[in-house]
Amino acid sequence: MTPTPRPTPTPAAASGPRRTPRAGSLVISEVRLTPILVADPPLLNTQGVHQPYTPRLIIEVVTADGVTGVGETYGDTKYLELAQPLAGKLAGHRITELNGLSALAEEVAVNAARVENSVDVGGLRGVQTADKLRLSVVSGFEVACLDAWGKTAGLPVHALLGGKVRDRVEYSAYLFYRWKEHPRAAGGQADDWGAAADPAGVVAQAERFAETYGFTSFKLKGGVFEPDQEIAAIRALAERFPGRPLRLDPNGAWSVPTSLHVATELRGVLEYLEDPTSGTARMAEVAAEAGVPLATNMCVTTFGEIREAFTKDAVQVVLSDHHYWGGLRNTRELAAVCRAFGVGLSMHSNTHLGISLAAMTHVAATVPNLDYACDSHYPWQTEDVITERLAFRDGCLDVTDTPGLGVELDPAKLAPLHQRWLDDDGTMRDRDDAAAMRVADPGWTTPRTPRW
Amino acid sequence: MTPTPRPTPTPAAASGPRRTPRAGSLVISEVRLTPILVADPPLLNTQGVHQPYTPRLIIEVVTADGVTGVGETYGDTKYLELAQPLAGKLAGHRITELNGLSALAEEVAVNAARVENSVDVGGLRGVQTADKLRLSVVSGFEVACLDAWGKTAGLPVHALLGGKVRDRVEYSAYLFYRWKEHPRAAGGQADDWGAAADPAGVVAQAERFAETYGFTSFKLKGGVFEPDQEIAAIRALAERFPGRPLRLDPNGAWSVPTSLHVATELRGVLEYLEDPTSGTARMAEVAAEAGVPLATNMCVTTFGEIREAFTKDAVQVVLSDHHYWGGLRNTRELAAVCRAFGVGLSMHSNTHLGISLAAMTHVAATVPNLDYACDSHYPWQTEDVITERLAFRDGCLDVTDTPGLGVELDPAKLAPLHQRWLDDDGTMRDRDDAAAMRVADPGWTTPRTPRW
Repeated sequence: MTPTPRPTPTPAAASGPRRTPRAGSLVISEVRLTPILVADPPLLNTQGVHQPYTPRLIIEVVTADGVTGVGETYGDTKYLELAQPLAGKLAGHRITELNGLSALAEEVAVNAARVENSVDVGGLRGVQTADKLRLSVVSGFEVACLDAWGKTAGLPVHALLGGKVRDRVEYSAYLFYRWKEHPRAAGGQADDWGAAADPAGVVAQAERFAETYGFTSFKLKGGVFEPDQEIAAIRALAERFPGRPLRLDPNGAWSVPTSLHVATELRGVLEYLEDPTSGTARMAEVAAEAGVPLATNMCVTTFGEIREAFTKDAVQVVLSDHHYWGGLRNTRELAAVCRAFGVGLSMHSNTHLGISLAAMTHVAATVPNLDYACDSHYPWQTEDVITERLAFRDGCLDVTDTPGLGVELDPAKLAPLHQRWLDDDGTMRDRDDAAAMRVADPGWTTPRTPRW
Repeated sequence: MTPTPRPTPTPAAASGPRRTPRAGSLVISEVRLTPILVADPPLLNTQGVHQPYTPRLIIEVVTADGVTGVGETYGDTKYLELAQPLAGKLAGHRITELNGLSALAEEVAVNAARVENSVDVGGLRGVQTADKLRLSVVSGFEVACLDAWGKTAGLPVHALLGGKVRDRVEYSAYLFYRWKEHPRAAGGQADDWGAAADPAGVVAQAERFAETYGFTSFKLKGGVFEPDQEIAAIRALAERFPGRPLRLDPNGAWSVPTSLHVATELRGVLEYLEDPTSGTARMAEVAAEAGVPLATNMCVTTFGEIREAFTKDAVQVVLSDHHYWGGLRNTRELAAVCRAFGVGLSMHSNTHLGISLAAMTHVAATVPNLDYACDSHYPWQTEDVITERLAFRDGCLDVTDTPGLGVELDPAKLAPLHQRWLDDDGTMRDRDDAAAMRVADPGWTTPRTPRW
């Protein structure tokens, strides 16, 4: 078990040497970090099942004039271990000093979290490196700074990114195989979605998504059942929603031959196939024969991975995640690289709350080459920390012109989620989908890829 | 002769249908365009010689609150023809709506300048396309908007780009073969630099640059004399300034074998060789054998040219020009592409004034991977339109924290340069280095490449 960080609803800027705060309302006077646990349904993926609660970190950056900006990022222990000292460094800096955030995080990283370069088995977040961990933490601070800057200047975050080029951002339905409820031993809250374990269950889930939110494109998280069962589910969706964009994402669970089998079976049916297999070399092999565009949020998750993947034509669509990539401005830079290389762009999602959804929407609104409806887990999250949940209409979110992100942190909603984190005995503070699966299936081990 | 645009020191926003201005101090109420002719010394390049006067366009964007931002870009007729209708469209837009500028320019471009895709023989600006022309115009408006935004918000332009990561930006001495003065028939002002037509003249020029400005790296504009004469000039510089970064730029004048001959002779002497030959294919051939990094501001001048050049490893350093690339924010995106592909980055310069130098310095301050001292023609410009010339110290410019660009337009300096443009009979309004050369050498025609 990694060491547990001190909870810090108290100001992180209260002690230690600081740069002299400069005059002006853009100077940071205080940073608050609040780790929380958020209810998550029993959604299945190739590694296991979502835990009943997943950790997130809420970041508040307060300026000398008392304006508070909010950000959100991954909340696992290793992220908190880096966020703590970074928060301590920020007082006296300006909220506009965004290019310097990464270097500041690098300074504190030396004594903070140790990260082994490896594949992140819990979050299916692709390769895990110290760089990427740092960027994921930085992203939460960047968004909080942009929110505070926008509120101070009376500008929406999209304006700070050069302005929106669209008024609505389209999202897709994120379909999951799932259990009705978490095993009793795991705890967790029930919801009214019911189980989905076959094509009919997947179609029923899609229908509810379409009715409730107006989504017109659908992504199924695969890698859970034998590939032919998942092919059948996609075909059932195609029959129920003819002509609608469909996607399948087994999180790298398949071999090259299996990937090509699925691609052949679903050619002309799928809009794209997401991460059928693991690693750029295998993705390139599949891409050369698939006849279906390949998307990824696993083999291109950092700037360092782009060159090989793009020169090998291993991926045709990059699903960006502003957390991985280091924030909204880096996401725009990724979009520029994709434009230059004729690679498509859309957005990945992991379990997240309304702050991150608002951030995604702002940056998506500014990117001309947002070629596909974005992913979001948000409809699966019954809890949030903002005063008013964001509402999808016709599968889209309106781009707000309210200053900052346009969302407001609700302390009354934040407190119980933080209390849950405080009360947790350590089992939920680090997301581990395989461990969650072992509660139901004690013999379960993290599957090696390719599974099929 | 292309048609002459109306001079417009008068507001461009005075007539025509407009978007309803929205409330707030960031709304544009007026745009002023002032074409000018700026004195330029008789600097030689492979196409000919600089004209006695070169056209530039000064752009002023005025907000509803009366804040004025300034920008500068190329001022040839075809740029003015596009800038005019774009200026007319801007009233009612916000100065923060930067992502929309390019689309707005596209709307007006249909009825504006017709551009044949070709190599720009005058300015040696690489391939000339409608896209690139539009971006060059947009860049002047973007800089003016950023200046106005910065002044309104009390923030330096670098802060609007995410903040500086260095306090000084290093520039290199830009050495030219040159005549003592323009031919009498051409008119033009004399200066006290004298001629430079051999290694001794080049070294003397470099010494003055080093003494006056503190430059420690040196670039020689080549492609003027037989390659062996230019090799001798670089060797003379290396002897006089041992260990200092040296560069040679013949603007694509050489064949592949000639390029390789020069590269072999100057291996270990040159920091990089700039555009030895024309076109990505030939650059790739040279790069494969040269043993010296190749830089370019001719074969990678647009985002559309990146993919081929980077996948072929045709260039190791891109010299960005924020005018070509569409502004300071696009320059940052180019920097991101270069980072992702391990390609070096520095900055190109064409004849420009202090507004553009300030803009270059702001963006350069924010780019982490600015790997080389930037080029600037600025020391050759005896005229300017700002109240106080920017001053190099130790070869560097300090990065200002003054709101906006940190420079102020001086109407008393602008007026005579605009009057010169008004009085011109058309010979100087479109830069043409070959035409300027014909004044001295009536038989001169634009040399075909490769010249050697």
